[in-house]
Amino acid sequence: MHEETVGSLAERVGGRVVGDAGRRITGVGDLRSAGPEQLGFVRDLKYRDLARASGAGALLVPEPLETQAAQIVVANVPASFARIATVFFPLPRATSQRVHPTAVVDPGAVLESPVDVGARVVVERGARVGAGSVLKAGVTVGEGCRLGRDCVVFPGVVLYPGVTVGDRVILHANCVLGSDGFGYAPDGPRYVKLPQLGSVEIGDDVEIGAGTTIDRGALGVTRVGRGTKIDNLVHVGHNCTIGEDVAIAGFCAFSGSTVIGDRVAIAGHVVSSGHLKVADDVKIGGNSVIYFDLDQAGEYVGYPLQEKRQWFRTLRVLDKLLELQQDVRELKKR
Amino acid sequence: MHEETVGSLAERVGGRVVGDAGRRITGVGDLRSAGPEQLGFVRDLKYRDLARASGAGALLVPEPLETQAAQIVVANVPASFARIATVFFPLPRATSQRVHPTAVVDPGAVLESPVDVGARVVVERGARVGAGSVLKAGVTVGEGCRLGRDCVVFPGVVLYPGVTVGDRVILHANCVLGSDGFGYAPDGPRYVKLPQLGSVEIGDDVEIGAGTTIDRGALGVTRVGRGTKIDNLVHVGHNCTIGEDVAIAGFCAFSGSTVIGDRVAIAGHVVSSGHLKVADDVKIGGNSVIYFDLDQAGEYVGYPLQEKRQWFRTLRVLDKLLELQQDVRELKKR
Amino acid sequence: MHEETVGSLAERVGGRVVGDAGRRITGVGDLRSAGPEQLGFVRDLKYRDLARASGAGALLVPEPLETQAAQIVVANVPASFARIATVFFPLPRATSQRVHPTAVVDPGAVLESPVDVGARVVVERGARVGAGSVLKAGVTVGEGCRLGRDCVVFPGVVLYPGVTVGDRVILHANCVLGSDGFGYAPDGPRYVKLPQLGSVEIGDDVEIGAGTTIDRGALGVTRVGRGTKIDNLVHVGHNCTIGEDVAIAGFCAFSGSTVIGDRVAIAGHVVSSGHLKVADDVKIGGNSVIYFDLDQAGEYVGYPLQEKRQWFRTLRVLDKLLELQQDVRELKKR
Repeated sequence: MHEETVGSLAERVGGRVVGDAGRRITGVGDLRSAGPEQLGFVRDLKYRDLARASGAGALLVPEPLETQAAQIVVANVPASFARIATVFFPLPRATSQRVHPTAVVDPGAVLESPVDVGARVVVERGARVGAGSVLKAGVTVGEGCRLGRDCVVFPGVVLYPGVTVGDRVILHANCVLGSDGFGYAPDGPRYVKLPQLGSVEIGDDVEIGAGTTIDRGALGVTRVGRGTKIDNLVHVGHNCTIGEDVAIAGFCAFSGSTVIGDRVAIAGHVVSSGHLKVADDVKIGGNSVIYFDLDQAGEYVGYPLQEKRQWFRTLRVLDKLLELQQDVRELKKR
Repeated sequence: MHEETVGSLAERVGGRVVGDAGRRITGVGDLRSAGPEQLGFVRDLKYRDLARASGAGALLVPEPLETQAAQIVVANVPASFARIATVFFPLPRATSQRVHPTAVVDPGAVLESPVDVGARVVVERGARVGAGSVLKAGVTVGEGCRLGRDCVVFPGVVLYPGVTVGDRVILHANCVLGSDGFGYAPDGPRYVKLPQLGSVEIGDDVEIGAGTTIDRGALGVTRVGRGTKIDNLVHVGHNCTIGEDVAIAGFCAFSGSTVIGDRVAIAGHVVSSGHLKVADDVKIGGNSVIYFDLDQAGEYVGYPLQEKRQWFRTLRVLDKLLELQQDVRELKKR
Repeated sequence: MHEETVGSLAERVGGRVVGDAGRRITGVGDLRSAGPEQLGFVRDLKYRDLARASGAGALLVPEPLETQAAQIVVANVPASFARIATVFFPLPRATSQRVHPTAVVDPGAVLESPVDVGARVVVERGARVGAGSVLKAGVTVGEGCRLGRDCVVFPGVVLYPGVTVGDRVILHANCVLGSDGFGYAPDGPRYVKLPQLGSVEIGDDVEIGAGTTIDRGALGVTRVGRGTKIDNLVHVGHNCTIGEDVAIAGFCAFSGSTVIGDRVAIAGHVVSSGHLKVADDVKIGGNSVIYFDLDQAGEYVGYPLQEKRQWFRTLRVLDKLLELQQDVRELKKR
C-alpha cells in the first residue's frame, strides 16, 4: 500500500495546503465514506455541508472550507483528484519481463523489455509490443501489429493483423480492432466481398471500452486520434477518422468514412450516417442521429438534429402533439 | 436420456393429471412438432385446435381439453413448462471436480469442490469459485473475484478483478463484468482518467446475455439485484443500481448512476440518460429514451417518453404529420 | 506476392482490355494512391479527372477513358474490383493440416483435412470442421457443431453446442452464435428460465461481424440464409429467420421471431419489435424501428416507419415543429 503526506500530494497537483501538511494518506474515497487516512474531494461548494461532516483525512477543495480535514486547494478539483487517485491506484505496468508459459509468442514477434504477457496470450509473427505494456489473459495480437509503450490490454481483446496502437493506450476486455469493414459489391442479387485491405491506427493515450469494435479501412486507414476516449459497445465503421481529445460515450455507432474533428464530445447512443463531417469542438447530446455535416462548433442533439435549446423545446411540443392536433381540428371546425 | 411418467411430472409442478398418468415422457416440444414421448403445452385456449391435432404424448393445459394426449392441468402453463423442460434439459452443473489441464488456476485461488473448469480458463490470485459451478472454455476470472455456487459461465466471459457474483448465476459468452467506467476529468482540452476504484456485485439467480458489458463503480458499486435477467449487448454504466427481478431485453444502454427499481420490465433498445431513477414495477416499451425520473409504476414508452396509450396515439399523429402541416397551411391561407 | 498481367486479370472478370494487356500488376489501390504496379478503379465517370491524373498501372472502368493506364472495361466495376482484389489478397484458407499444439480438440471431434486450427482453439466432442477452414486463435466450437468447408473464424468467436454453419462462412472476432434466447416464464414476481432447446443454422457464404450475437431458437431454429451479410454489434433474437442475400449494417437488433425475407437491405441502427415479417426485397433506411409487418417491397425508413420520401419530408416538418406550433397558436388567437 502506497502512503504519502498531504504535503507531497499537494506538490504533485500544484495545490496549496491548508491545515496539517504532514498528515498521512493511503487512499481516496468519496465525501460520505472516506476515512482519516483517505483523501476526498469537494467538486462544488454546494457540497460544503457534506465536506464539514466528512471523516476524510484530507480534502481537495476549490477554496478553503470550514472542516477538520487537511485541505489541498486547487483550481481543477476533478483533474487533481484523478491524478492523486492514480498515485494510489496506478494502472498496471510491466516492470520486469514476464511471459506466461501458456502464452504463444511467435519467434518472429518482438517483445520489448520489460513487458508482461499473460496466460493464453497469442502474439503473431512480426508483431511488436512496446516496453512497459501489459497484455492480460487471452489477448490476441495479429501479424505485424505495432503496440506502443505502457499499454494495458485487457482479456479477450483481438487485434487483427496490421493494427497500430500508440503509447499508453488502454484497450478494455473483448474489444476488437481491425475487423473487416462492411464492404460488398452487389452483383445481381448477390454480394461480392470487397477485401478490406486498409488498417487501423490508434493514437497515444487513447482508451477504448469493452466490446467496442473498430473496423479496418477498406483501402485506407481507420484512425482514432491521440487522447480520445471511447466507451463500451461502440461501433466504428471502416475509414472513419476520429480526431484528438474526443470523448465518445457508450453505445454509439459511426458508419463508414465518418470524420469527427478534435475535442468533439459525443454522449451515449449517438449514431452517424456515413461520409459525414463533424467540426472541431462540437458537442452532441445523447440519442442523436447525425445525418448532415456539422460545420460549426456548438451543441447539437436529437433527431432531427438541432441546436440543443431548440431540441428540448421541440421535444416538449412532441410531448403535447395530441393537443396540437386537437387545436388544429378545432380550428378547422370553426 | 432422462425418462419420467406424466404422473411424476405433474407432481413436480403441482398439476392434476387428466388421462394416462403412466405415460412415459422423454422430452418436450411445441404443439406442432412434439411426438408421443414428448410433452407440449397449450399457453392459451385459442390454440385448442392445434392441441387436438398435436401428436404430443402429453400436454400442459390451463384446463382440460378434448385431445388424445395425457394432460397436466396447471394454473401457470409457461412456468410449469419451463420447470419440466429443465428436468429434461438441466443447466450444466459440476458434479465432480474437473480442472482441464490447460486451465491456469493461480495457487492462491480457491476452487470449491466440485467445480468444472474448462480448457484455457484463467482464475487469478485470490479468486474463489463456488461448488457446482461450471466455467466453460476461455473464461477469465480476475484477482479476488467471488463466484457463487452452481453458476454457469460461458466461453470468453471476462470478470475484472474484485467482481462478486451470487449463486446460480448464468453469464453468457463474451460478456464483461467490471470493466472501467467512462470517467475522466477535463483538464484544459485533455482528459485525465479517473481511476475506477469501485466494483460490481451480481445477485443470486441473475442471467446476463452474450456481449453485455457491466462497468465497475467509479468509487462505489454497480449492482444487479437477485433474479434479474439481462439480454445480449446491453451496456450498464458505472454505479448503476438495478433492482431485483428486473427484465432487460437486448440492446439497451444505461448511463452511469441510473437506478432501476424492483420488478421493472424493460423491452429492447431502451436507453437511459444518467443519474435517473425508475420506480419499482415500471414497464418500459421498446425504443424508449428515459430522460427524466419515473416515480410511478405504469407503462411508459417512446421518445418523448409517455404513457403507453399516449405514445401510440402520438406515433399516429407523427405518421400524419405532413397532413397536419397541410391543414395549418390551409388555415393560414383563409 | 502474387503477380499477374492486365490481360489475365481482364479474363477473370470478363473485361475488355484497352491499352497494354501485358502490363504486370501486383496489387490494388485507390485512384489517388495506386502506383504503376497497382490496379485502381473508376466507379463513376464523375471521377474522370482523378482517373486521368492517377498513377495506377491499370484501371477498371465502365467505359474507355483518356488515361495513361491500361484499362479493363467491365459492366460492373465494383464487383470486378472485388474479384480482382481477392486474387491479390485472398481470404485465409487451410492448404495443409495444421493443429496448433495448444489447441484442445476433443478426440470425438472430426477435423477434415486440411484444416488450420490456431492456438488456444477449443473444439468440443462431436463437432466437425470442414476441409479448408481456418480457426484463428482462441475460437470455441461447442459440442456437436457442424462447420462447413473453407470457413474463416476469427479470434474469440464462440459457437455454443449444436450450431450449424455452411461453407465459406466468415465469422468475425468475438461474435457469438447459439447463446440462449431471452425466454422466461413469469411466476408471480419472479422469472423461471425457459430452457432454450433450439439451435442456429447459418447458410453458405454468410459473413457475420465482430461482436454480433445470434441466439439459438427456444424450441426451433434461428436461421440466417445463404449469402447474407451481417455487420458488427448486431443482436439477432431467438427464432429469427433471416433470408438469403440480405445485408444488415452495424448496430441493428432484431427481437425474437422476426422474419426477414430474401434480398432485404437494412442500414445501420435498425431495430425490430418481435414476431414481425419483412417481405422480400424491402430496403430499410438507418435509424428505423420496424413495428409492423412490411408486406410490400419498397424503401422504408424512420420512426414512425414510412416510405422513404415521406419520412424525409416528415423529418423536415419535425425540424420546424416549433414554427408549426407557433402558427397554431396565432391561428387560435385570431
